[in-house]
Amino acid sequence: MSHWFHDGKPASVVPLDDRAFQYGDGLFETIAIRNGEPRLWRYHMDRLAAGCERLRIAVPDAQPLRKQLGVAVTESGEIPGYCAAKIIVSCGVSARGYARENPTAANTYIGIFATRPVAAELYRDGVETRVCETKLALFSATAGLKTLNRLEQVLARSECHAHGAFEGLTLDAGDQLICGTMSNVFIVSNEAISTPSLHRCGVEGVMRRHTIDTLAANDITVECRDIGKDELFQSDEVFLTNSQFGVLPVRRCGDKVWRQHPVTQKVMAMMARNGVVECVA
Amino acid sequence: MSHWFHDGKPASVVPLDDRAFQYGDGLFETIAIRNGEPRLWRYHMDRLAAGCERLRIAVPDAQPLRKQLGVAVTESGEIPGYCAAKIIVSCGVSARGYARENPTAANTYIGIFATRPVAAELYRDGVETRVCETKLALFSATAGLKTLNRLEQVLARSECHAHGAFEGLTLDAGDQLICGTMSNVFIVSNEAISTPSLHRCGVEGVMRRHTIDTLAANDITVECRDIGKDELFQSDEVFLTNSQFGVLPVRRCGDKVWRQHPVTQKVMAMMARNGVVECVA
Repeated sequence: MSHWFHDGKPASVVPLDDRAFQYGDGLFETIAIRNGEPRLWRYHMDRLAAGCERLRIAVPDAQPLRKQLGVAVTESGEIPGYCAAKIIVSCGVSARGYARENPTAANTYIGIFATRPVAAELYRDGVETRVCETKLALFSATAGLKTLNRLEQVLARSECHAHGAFEGLTLDAGDQLICGTMSNVFIVSNEAISTPSLHRCGVEGVMRRHTIDTLAANDITVECRDIGKDELFQSDEVFLTNSQFGVLPVRRCGDKVWRQHPVTQKVMAMMARNGVVECVA
Repeated sequence: MSHWFHDGKPASVVPLDDRAFQYGDGLFETIAIRNGEPRLWRYHMDRLAAGCERLRIAVPDAQPLRKQLGVAVTESGEIPGYCAAKIIVSCGVSARGYARENPTAANTYIGIFATRPVAAELYRDGVETRVCETKLALFSATAGLKTLNRLEQVLARSECHAHGAFEGLTLDAGDQLICGTMSNVFIVSNEAISTPSLHRCGVEGVMRRHTIDTLAANDITVECRDIGKDELFQSDEVFLTNSQFGVLPVRRCGDKVWRQHPVTQKVMAMMARNGVVECVA
């Protein structure tokens, strides 16, 4: 069930001339609502602002957006305020043609979605993944951003859906590990934690940033670097991050099985203490 | 002025949950309507079908679509049937999440847009272009397709718009020439005609194919191959193709000026004889 809002009022449709529909011209954020409050709001607004600047879209004002989000959560009736909010920033209606004004005003739409917590045993035992056949294009002009151009993720996710995997891990065209279709990925080798560099493609997730910051506050440095496919399979542990589920260990990727996740469990405990309450194994 | 139609009836909006709005999950065709008839209809339908197959979307049936297009052209009142039609194939409404059913049913929307012919002197003297700073990502899973993920073109086109250029030429991240933001590009060197290979990125335009086929019917082979940025500037002539304007010579790209376009003029004459009536210099 979804509930959409625009300008603080319930909405169900968007004009056919909207540039998000025509070109995917916009950005979005998917925010966990916990006890009626948006989690990691500042990180989401930081990323949205950075994305708007890179795409030369006027940055939406966070304060009225926060107010509209509160109204949307209340009016959606998702009780007790445990749900997902999707904020879509579209470049709005324009005449036909790719060019737009510079900077471009943005329209915001807020969707509220019922969500269920991930089963507790997956936090304990880990999730099943596979490497997707769909690869991410290299040196994308929108690398790192959560834009409305998500066909690569649609194709990759539809693959793992067909195979019953919880998540698909995507490589770039050079066979470097990048991220999951809906998550970021971290590997643990000899107790050192690394996560793929996302300057050529991929999405810089808000929970990825929160994980890096939480670990830094615990004097643990995460190395952001190139990680090849082989290194993924040789690593001691693998875990995923996502705004909704927080941190989840990976139990399997294809034929490779990881049965123990001691470092990941420590990370999860730190995250739980830092507001990501799901992360208790 | 735009006129939109869905299922043969006037339409102005699309559901907010539509996957084209959420993810750019779909394809489109922009078709020249001349004397009320769609030009190169079969080529457009071929490309649409190929795109749907690659993206695993159910291929829309061409015959009812042709009928709906006829109704849309008539009802839009764009007289005397000189306009552009945009057919959007969206994957339709789904629950939140990237994954979709396989194969996925498609919704089609038809937009009719008033267009003006390009000024005659541009067919004679050529158009101004520039090389865009925005580069196309390499090894795209949707290379060649006209998908609804068009942010690269939005960014590139907005650049040339700002500089007053008729068209922007886009390179890939490896500095190979790929296409224009809304056109394909051909170069002439020692009377030999070449066009960039589009297997790593770019859109395979319908007018590009019609040009290659028309030249083949005149015993002229177009070589599809990698063309570096330097080779673009060293070429004797450059021309563009697009479904609406047909073929246009390039007069300038940045500082480089081409004053004569003898081979291009021959190509234009062949295209004019093969139904692209705009191409008379």
